[in-house]
Amino acid sequence: MAIDAVLTRIDEALPHALDRLMTLLRIPSISTDPAFKDDCLAAAQWLVNELTDIGFSAQLRPTPGHPMVTATTPGDGPKLLFYGHYDVQPVDPLDLWNTPPFEPQLQDTPKGKVIRGRGASDDKGQLMTFIEACRAYKDVNGQLPPNLLIFLEGEEESGSPSLVPFMKEHAAELTSSLALICDTSMVSPGVPSISGSLRGMLKEEFTLMGPKIDLHSGHYGGPGLNPLREISKLIASLHDDTGRVTITGFYDGVHEVPAQQLEQWKTCGFNEAEYLNSVGFTKAHGETGYSTLEQQWARPTVEINGLWGGYQGAGSKTVIPAQAHCKITCRLVGEQDPAHIRTQLREHLEARLPEDAALRWDTSLPGAKAAFMDTSRPEFEAARQALSDEWKRDAVIVGMGGSIPIAGYFKDILGMDSMLIGFAHDDDAIHSPNEKYNVESFHKGTRSWARILEALTH
Amino acid sequence: MAIDAVLTRIDEALPHALDRLMTLLRIPSISTDPAFKDDCLAAAQWLVNELTDIGFSAQLRPTPGHPMVTATTPGDGPKLLFYGHYDVQPVDPLDLWNTPPFEPQLQDTPKGKVIRGRGASDDKGQLMTFIEACRAYKDVNGQLPPNLLIFLEGEEESGSPSLVPFMKEHAAELTSSLALICDTSMVSPGVPSISGSLRGMLKEEFTLMGPKIDLHSGHYGGPGLNPLREISKLIASLHDDTGRVTITGFYDGVHEVPAQQLEQWKTCGFNEAEYLNSVGFTKAHGETGYSTLEQQWARPTVEINGLWGGYQGAGSKTVIPAQAHCKITCRLVGEQDPAHIRTQLREHLEARLPEDAALRWDTSLPGAKAAFMDTSRPEFEAARQALSDEWKRDAVIVGMGGSIPIAGYFKDILGMDSMLIGFAHDDDAIHSPNEKYNVESFHKGTRSWARILEALTH
Repeated sequence: MAIDAVLTRIDEALPHALDRLMTLLRIPSISTDPAFKDDCLAAAQWLVNELTDIGFSAQLRPTPGHPMVTATTPGDGPKLLFYGHYDVQPVDPLDLWNTPPFEPQLQDTPKGKVIRGRGASDDKGQLMTFIEACRAYKDVNGQLPPNLLIFLEGEEESGSPSLVPFMKEHAAELTSSLALICDTSMVSPGVPSISGSLRGMLKEEFTLMGPKIDLHSGHYGGPGLNPLREISKLIASLHDDTGRVTITGFYDGVHEVPAQQLEQWKTCGFNEAEYLNSVGFTKAHGETGYSTLEQQWARPTVEINGLWGGYQGAGSKTVIPAQAHCKITCRLVGEQDPAHIRTQLREHLEARLPEDAALRWDTSLPGAKAAFMDTSRPEFEAARQALSDEWKRDAVIVGMGGSIPIAGYFKDILGMDSMLIGFAHDDDAIHSPNEKYNVESFHKGTRSWARILEALTH
Repeated sequence: MAIDAVLTRIDEALPHALDRLMTLLRIPSISTDPAFKDDCLAAAQWLVNELTDIGFSAQLRPTPGHPMVTATTPGDGPKLLFYGHYDVQPVDPLDLWNTPPFEPQLQDTPKGKVIRGRGASDDKGQLMTFIEACRAYKDVNGQLPPNLLIFLEGEEESGSPSLVPFMKEHAAELTSSLALICDTSMVSPGVPSISGSLRGMLKEEFTLMGPKIDLHSGHYGGPGLNPLREISKLIASLHDDTGRVTITGFYDGVHEVPAQQLEQWKTCGFNEAEYLNSVGFTKAHGETGYSTLEQQWARPTVEINGLWGGYQGAGSKTVIPAQAHCKITCRLVGEQDPAHIRTQLREHLEARLPEDAALRWDTSLPGAKAAFMDTSRPEFEAARQALSDEWKRDAVIVGMGGSIPIAGYFKDILGMDSMLIGFAHDDDAIHSPNEKYNVESFHKGTRSWARILEALTH
C-alpha cells in the first residue's frame, strides 16, 4: 500500500524534517511587536521557498500587515484547505527561559525527546507536520495530493487584523470543501483529539487616567486619587466570590453543557489532577460548580493579561502615578456576541469610575464568536479512523479552551466547515517561557496527516 | 547692619549661585538605582569641594551605601546642625519630561522664573539655599557662622539605610542644640511655613505567586488562578467605600485633630481648590469627613506606588502570568507604630490569599513614626520673625504630609529637636516629570536662611 511507503518515508526522513523545523524556529517572527516585522516577512518567504521546493505553486501575498502564504496543487476532487500560522508569541519574561527562545534545541526529557524554542508547538511545529506529510507523499507518489490549498497567516498572535479583509477579497480562491487546522492540543498525551468547539475571543486594553501628572504620595497621599487603587477596584469588580463574571448580560447566549456530553468528557482520557498539578494548582479556580473541563471548554472568562502603572524599578518611589494600564481578554462560548460583551464590559467599568478619573480605550479589534464544528460530516469519521490507526487508541471529539477565530471566519465568510486536529501537549508551555513540542507529536503528527490525506483524497 | 550687607551680597551673587546649583543638578544622583552609584559619589564629592572652598572643614564620610557629607565651622555658642540630601528620585516616566531631567534650565513661566530639572526642588535646590546663605555670610563677615555642622546624606529617596547606623556611631559628633532641615514646602506660594509635624512612613513590596509558569489563557483561562486578578482583589480590600483603611488595628494611635488647630489650618493661607485643581481633582479623594489638609497632614494612608505583572508590550498576549508585583507605602500619623502596621498589613493580605497562591515579601527596611516638633522653643519664634521679615507676611506653623524620617531619628537617637523650614511650592512636581524650583524660592530662601542664621547665632 502506498500509505505504508509514505509512512516509512516519514520515518526515514525525520532528522531532515526536524532540521527544517529548526531553521523556521530560528526566525523570530513575533507579530505583535513592530520591531520584528522583517522577521515575519522572512518566515513567510522561507515557507514560500520550501513549499515551492516540494512542488506547490506557492506565493507570498502582501497585506497591510504581515503577508499571507498560499500554496496550491492541481487536481480534481473536493478542494481541501490547510490553515496554520507562522507568527509566534512574544518571549518575555526572557529571564525565565533556560535556553535562548530563538535558538531551538533537541532535548531529552523524562517524558521523551522535545524540540525547545518559541513557536516549537504554536504553531510552527504543528503546521510543519502537514507540510512534511505532503513532502513524503510527493516523494513516494511522485506528485502532491490533489486540489490542496495551504493558507498560512502571520498575524494569528496579534488578532489577525488583515485576515478578514483578505478572505473577503479572495473568497472564491479560498473557499474549499473543508478547512484543516493544526493549532490545537491532544486532550491527554497519546490520545488523538479532534476539536468539536473553540471558545471565541474579545480583546480590550484601557488606560485609567487620574491626576494630570505623577504626584508625590507625601503631598497627595490622602486627598489624591490613586489610579493603581482605582484600577484594582475595577478589576476586582469583574467577578463575584464564586468566580462568576458580574458584567450585566455577560452570560447571554451561554448554555449549560448537556449531561450526555459531560459524560463523554469524563471518559475522554483527560487527567484533571495532572493538568492542574503540573502548573501548581490543587484545584480548579474558575466558577464554583463547574469541572475543570467545563471551565476550560464551555464557560466564558474575563482574564487580565497585563496590568501596570507606577514605579517598577529597584528600590522604591513614593509616587501616585497619573495613569494605570490593563490588558484584558474574554473567552466566549455559546452564542455570546463579542460586540455586545465589549459594550457591556465598557459600561461596567465606566459606571464604577470615581470622579476625576477617566478611561481611555486603547483597542479597536473586532472579537470572534465561539465556533462549533459539524462533526457529522463524513471527513470527521475518516479522520477519526486514520488517527485511531496511527495512535493505536480511539480518537475523541473534545472541546477547546483556546480561540482560533479563523474557524469562525471560515464559516461566516466562506461558508466552510473546519476540522481541527492538533498534536500539542498541555505542558508545551505555548505563550510561556521554554515552549516545546514533543518529537513524538511532530513525528506521529506528520504520519497522522499522511493517513488523513490518504483517506480524504482517495 | 551686617545682615543688610549679607542680603545685598545674596542679591548680587544670585547668577553665580544659580550656576552652582545647575552644576549640582547635572549630576544624576539617583540613589535607588545601583546604576547611578558613581553619580551619587560625584554629587557628594562636589559638595565637599564647594563647602571646602567656602571655608568649611568638609569631609566625605563613607557608608555601606552612598556617602555622607559633613562640614563644620569653629566657634562657640549653641551648635546648629543643618540637614539636607543630595540624592534625587528616579526620572521615569522619561517620555513625560519636556526637557532632559539632568540638563537643568532656567525657564520663564506665567508664575515666574523657574529652575527645571530633577532635584531642582527636592532637595538640591533647597539645600543649596542654606549653603549659599553661609557663603554670603562669609563674604561679608570674613568668617562663617560659628559652630555649624552641615550634614548631608545621599540615601533619603531610598529609605536611608545607612543613616541610623551612622548616627549611632557618630552620635557625639552630630548631637547639636537644634537641627535645621530644608526639605519641605510652603503651605501656599509666598506664605513662609515652619513644619510642626511630619507623617511617618512604612514601605512594603511584595510578589504574589500563582502558577509555576506563565499560562496560556485559552488553556487555563477558567480553571487557572490569575495573579493579576488576585493582586487586584488584595489591593481593593485595603480600603472601604469611605476611603478608610480596613487593616485591623491600623488606626491605633491615630488622634483626631483638636478643633483649635483645625481653625488655625483654615486661616493658614492654604488654597484647597487650587491645590486640588492644579493636578486635575475637583474634590479630595481621601477619607470621607476630613478636609484636604487633614487628609494630608493628620490622616494615615496606604498607597500603591507600583503595580505590575503580565504583558505590557505592544499588542496583546493571551497570558496568565505566574506572578504579580506591588509596591506600597503607608504614611503614618500620631503614635502609629510602623512595625505593628507592617505585621497587620501582612496579616491582612495573607488572610485574603486564595489557595495555590503565596506572597513573597520583598522589603525589610524599618519604617519611621510620625514626628512632632517642639514649636515652643525660642528658636522657632526667632525663625518666625526672620521669615516674616523676609516674606512680608506672617510665617505659619503647618503640618506636613511628607515623611522626613530624619526628624524622628534626630529626636530618638540624638535627643535633638528639629526645625523644618522649606521654600518649595506644591506644584514643584517633586518625584514627577518636569520637577522645578522657583527662582524666588531659591533667592528668598537663601535670604531667609541668612536672616535665621543671624538671629540664631547672635
